[in-house]
Amino acid sequence: MAEDQLTPRAENFSDWYNEIVLKAEMADYSPVRGCMVVRPYGWTLWENIQQGLDRRFKETGHVNAAFPLFIPMSFLEKEKEHVEGFAPELAVVTHGGGEKLEEPLVVRPTSETIIGYMYSKWIKSWRDLPVLINQWGNVVRWEMRTKLFLRTAEFYWQEGHTAHATEDEAREETLRMLDVYADFAINDAAIPVIKGIKSETEKFAGAVMSTTIEAMMGDTKALQSGTSHYLGQNFAKAFEIQYTDQGNQLQYCHTTSWGLSTRMIGAIIMTHGDDKGLVLPPKLAPIQLVMVPIFRSEDEKTLVMPVADRIFSELKAAGIRVKMDDREEVTPGFKYNDWEMRGVPLRMEIGPKDVEKNSVALARRDQPGKEGKTFVSQENIASTVASLLVDIQAALLAKATAFRDSNIHNPKDYNELKKVVQDGWAFSWWCESKECEAKVKEDTKASTRCIPLERQPGGEGACIVCGGKSTRKVYFAKAY
Amino acid sequence: MAEDQLTPRAENFSDWYNEIVLKAEMADYSPVRGCMVVRPYGWTLWENIQQGLDRRFKETGHVNAAFPLFIPMSFLEKEKEHVEGFAPELAVVTHGGGEKLEEPLVVRPTSETIIGYMYSKWIKSWRDLPVLINQWGNVVRWEMRTKLFLRTAEFYWQEGHTAHATEDEAREETLRMLDVYADFAINDAAIPVIKGIKSETEKFAGAVMSTTIEAMMGDTKALQSGTSHYLGQNFAKAFEIQYTDQGNQLQYCHTTSWGLSTRMIGAIIMTHGDDKGLVLPPKLAPIQLVMVPIFRSEDEKTLVMPVADRIFSELKAAGIRVKMDDREEVTPGFKYNDWEMRGVPLRMEIGPKDVEKNSVALARRDQPGKEGKTFVSQENIASTVASLLVDIQAALLAKATAFRDSNIHNPKDYNELKKVVQDGWAFSWWCESKECEAKVKEDTKASTRCIPLERQPGGEGACIVCGGKSTRKVYFAKAY
Repeated sequence: MAEDQLTPRAENFSDWYNEIVLKAEMADYSPVRGCMVVRPYGWTLWENIQQGLDRRFKETGHVNAAFPLFIPMSFLEKEKEHVEGFAPELAVVTHGGGEKLEEPLVVRPTSETIIGYMYSKWIKSWRDLPVLINQWGNVVRWEMRTKLFLRTAEFYWQEGHTAHATEDEAREETLRMLDVYADFAINDAAIPVIKGIKSETEKFAGAVMSTTIEAMMGDTKALQSGTSHYLGQNFAKAFEIQYTDQGNQLQYCHTTSWGLSTRMIGAIIMTHGDDKGLVLPPKLAPIQLVMVPIFRSEDEKTLVMPVADRIFSELKAAGIRVKMDDREEVTPGFKYNDWEMRGVPLRMEIGPKDVEKNSVALARRDQPGKEGKTFVSQENIASTVASLLVDIQAALLAKATAFRDSNIHNPKDYNELKKVVQDGWAFSWWCESKECEAKVKEDTKASTRCIPLERQPGGEGACIVCGGKSTRKVYFAKAY
Repeated sequence: MAEDQLTPRAENFSDWYNEIVLKAEMADYSPVRGCMVVRPYGWTLWENIQQGLDRRFKETGHVNAAFPLFIPMSFLEKEKEHVEGFAPELAVVTHGGGEKLEEPLVVRPTSETIIGYMYSKWIKSWRDLPVLINQWGNVVRWEMRTKLFLRTAEFYWQEGHTAHATEDEAREETLRMLDVYADFAINDAAIPVIKGIKSETEKFAGAVMSTTIEAMMGDTKALQSGTSHYLGQNFAKAFEIQYTDQGNQLQYCHTTSWGLSTRMIGAIIMTHGDDKGLVLPPKLAPIQLVMVPIFRSEDEKTLVMPVADRIFSELKAAGIRVKMDDREEVTPGFKYNDWEMRGVPLRMEIGPKDVEKNSVALARRDQPGKEGKTFVSQENIASTVASLLVDIQAALLAKATAFRDSNIHNPKDYNELKKVVQDGWAFSWWCESKECEAKVKEDTKASTRCIPLERQPGGEGACIVCGGKSTRKVYFAKAY
């Protein structure tokens, strides 16, 4: 079993993370520098994330579509800040079908430009608005220092792109999708994210305003887990996305874009995982309950398996994602470790004595040892399991929230700020100047994460760096 | 309305197709040569195709994963026939992050090589087999003569890649997935495809055997609509995909691959569409029923809308994909044409008289005019609609099957073959030589489509071209 032991989180969080991704078979390194392979267990988690988000997108009136993977280099150059932001990260196709291309094509790092071009063709009148389209797909941003799910050249995401008649509507959409992300993160991923606005330095290249959901990982570092941008008329002007209004005047649209990526898988691992492996929230777990039948002889097997099979069918019929681990070449103990590594929320053990007593044992992944183990009746087993999964989901969120709150500090001065951001977040008044932001980064490596939309005390304060006038507090933290 | 009229199919099938794709807003041309934009209505159809296939893949034990978009050029070169087949169609990335790459990367035209590399890492023992993985994604094959959905540089598909211990198992898997494709095409897409084996000339670059589902389009041309390949040990040897068997001997795996793409959307359009537009099979239609409330005054509106809304809710609750078209700026007649163009299987009209009579009018898209219009009670409307959708699904399949069968000929000699393949398929004895296949192609532009797995008469015959010995009949047809 030794080879399956993880480096303890407290010893080296980064090694722990890398090991867990490989050992739980979530992803693997690929022979192509910077790219990852998402293995079936990781991809199934992503499919569940996709379902949770896609349902919310459709409930808020969005539809999906697909735009080209390739973007002419000249398109990116139409929005000055945008091309400056992305130029260093581009993968460039120079040859196609055996010939050199007249104009190099960029593999999309994001699709504002090509979608903007299409919107300018499709949108003519105020009647065509709003346009509310999302795309699921892959994008490429050249990266050399790969960290699976967190930083890879190719990654998977969704990118929403909307066009509106007015600034108010576009800003409303920006915040609506931020709420969708937060609702998903909190209720499905059990990650207590904080919604807020990015500083000018940290915002998306080409945006007027960027908003974010920020999560605290198990090492207290921050992870930007989803972003929603109000793009003003920047892309509308670059691509002539115009409509005639009800007074027959030509107007530029206001656009938004918003994205959430396979990074979310990294967030889930680093929020809930422990030294035994992954801990997955039941709502997203590929397998919610694993059954381990226990027998030492053919007689016991004959006794146990029919009951196990019946329970399996009951759980499946109730919509619970259940897996039967009936491998005979490995011991129950091996199986326990195996499924703990993979973070399955509940394990059911059933042996001859359980059959006799009409009971089963249930072990919670989030409460290792005896504390999390209960013996329950086989009667109404599906509803017992369903309600336990709800409890586990809530317990994960409560635990992560308590951890986050105990690691957010209100330093009284700059010296204390420098200390607290070493292993936590600081929530402090800030004058919103680039100079103060840069000083903190230089002194501590902590960046501004967001000016939260909620939890603002109101009134005024003194910037924790320069003492200048400040109307809003910001989170400073080291980040992935 | 004139601008929404299509070129009649009989006049110019190709123009009819191109117009329908644009006017029904299925897809659009993109500013990137060769690439398409799949618009929301087309993408929703693709999502429904994906669901129908993905369910079948999972039921047959497959899981999804994601492999890199980029493949090192050297990987393709490891399988000689494979690289020869794909070299002329490659898009090549030569620069990344502002620097020239040491080794150029190919944008995947298909993923046998990169997946083969990963399988060689993952597979060690017979216990690891079979590996049954599918990937949904985009691929690129450089094309200059774009035809939306049928021939584009970038397209969307799924590609299954499996590894097995024995040839028998791999061949069984190849045919299992061909059956899955045929079951989907026939039962969900209402396209009566024919399953068969590709000739040596027509098979996949690197395969031992390629199988296909071939469909007849409305102009009688054939469309290869999905393929499943037995790859033998070709890729296993190129990438060292090896396992130790139960006798502890090192063995090469036998692998398969199978794919179905957004081409299927083209197949649906060209199988069922008519001169008024798309005709979509109910099982896949983004919208199964469109409601058109009819009123000429505010009073009538007050009378009609509450009933329409109630019926809408009933249909929605019953799981029917229903859309309410309550636009007031256009006439009912405009709406009828609009939804006919988009191929919605059923239209419900409800006006003041219907409210009075507790009835609604239902108009079938597949039976234009009075023939397809019925007046039904509002009682049990959801089950009335559901059963009508089942009827429409069956009618589309029956119509397409009758059309196909009436255009498959059994020419008595080569002269007749040359005639019948001008507007139909020939089903003929063939000696399976490349020479006879090439002669038919040169004389008629018809290619061998497949040696069908079913419908073989048995016994022997004389090759329709050279008169030589033949044991199996083949379909000759012009193809997309």
